[in-house]
Amino acid sequence: MITKQQLMEARQRALEYLSRAGIVLTPEEQERIEVADFGLGDLEHTGLELITYVNTSRCCAKELVLFPRQTCPEHRHPPIGSDPGKEETFRCRWGEVYLYVPGEPTPQPHAMPPKGREPHYTVWHEIVLRPGEQYTIPPNTLHWFQAGEEGAVVSEFSTTSRDEFDIFTDPQIERITRVV
Amino acid sequence: MITKQQLMEARQRALEYLSRAGIVLTPEEQERIEVADFGLGDLEHTGLELITYVNTSRCCAKELVLFPRQTCPEHRHPPIGSDPGKEETFRCRWGEVYLYVPGEPTPQPHAMPPKGREPHYTVWHEIVLRPGEQYTIPPNTLHWFQAGEEGAVVSEFSTTSRDEFDIFTDPQIERITRVV
Ligand SMILES: [Zn+2]
Ligand SMILES: [Zn+2]
Repeated sequence: MITKQQLMEARQRALEYLSRAGIVLTPEEQERIEVADFGLGDLEHTGLELITYVNTSRCCAKELVLFPRQTCPEHRHPPIGSDPGKEETFRCRWGEVYLYVPGEPTPQPHAMPPKGREPHYTVWHEIVLRPGEQYTIPPNTLHWFQAGEEGAVVSEFSTTSRDEFDIFTDPQIERITRVV
Repeated sequence: MITKQQLMEARQRALEYLSRAGIVLTPEEQERIEVADFGLGDLEHTGLELITYVNTSRCCAKELVLFPRQTCPEHRHPPIGSDPGKEETFRCRWGEVYLYVPGEPTPQPHAMPPKGREPHYTVWHEIVLRPGEQYTIPPNTLHWFQAGEEGAVVSEFSTTSRDEFDIFTDPQIERITRVV
């Protein structure tokens, strides 16, 4: 849950990061930047700002903004009917992002989970993405990511987004943000 | 057909446009920027520079560069087997681009087809895209586009690319560029 004021401030701040990455939004898009606190009410640590450019029945593109050390919590995109689940490519445009996927745990990872939520972060194979670098997550594969000290702007190229079906490891998480 | 020298020069020039748009490529990506002359050997007028970020069996993302007044010639993406054909969203990142699709012809369009190729441009409903503006082309729909006086950088978000199946209106066009 976030307040209307937090929403407006986070949108404004996200716009500043996008502008550092040279990314231009239309006025209409600026008004619909999504601010996700994942229901934990701790946006600075667990949260994500995003704008969806297009989301058809076949493919989707978004821009993601992470404030410094902000974390998008661990989740996967499960199969839905005949769809094997969402496939996502993350391309870092600005800043630095630490992405975690299943595999050999990285000994000294750059990121730490938000305080108190540690048990809900279970995959620890680290991929560091700097501007121009990208990584593709197969469907139904656990992943989470955190920005470095300066924050990050990340393009997401994917199959159709159906956020309401995402499965988060942390049982307290709600994908749909309530604004009060 | 283009020469190796033309290829190298067009790649370098494309990189300059990408950098104006704030877009960073890895060194590996810089080496594989594709330069398409569509077989007409007149790259300045009929041509496109592009980098494919990802192209899986489900979705695709590219960055397109058009030099000033350079034209990507009229074509469509037909159905292939059970695939209804490629769906493309063009998002202008830098410069200005004039996109033409079926519909009411625009009385005074911004673009003119490359000289001598006019009969092969048949759709004239104009959409002007400036930075932050985008348009989605349904599958199997004729379209062509030209950059304004300053050139353009355009992100393409789409379903899987199978360029070799594209159908061009101009019978002299070959999609695969030969470098000599
Ligand atoms: Zn995801
Ligand atoms: Zn096309």
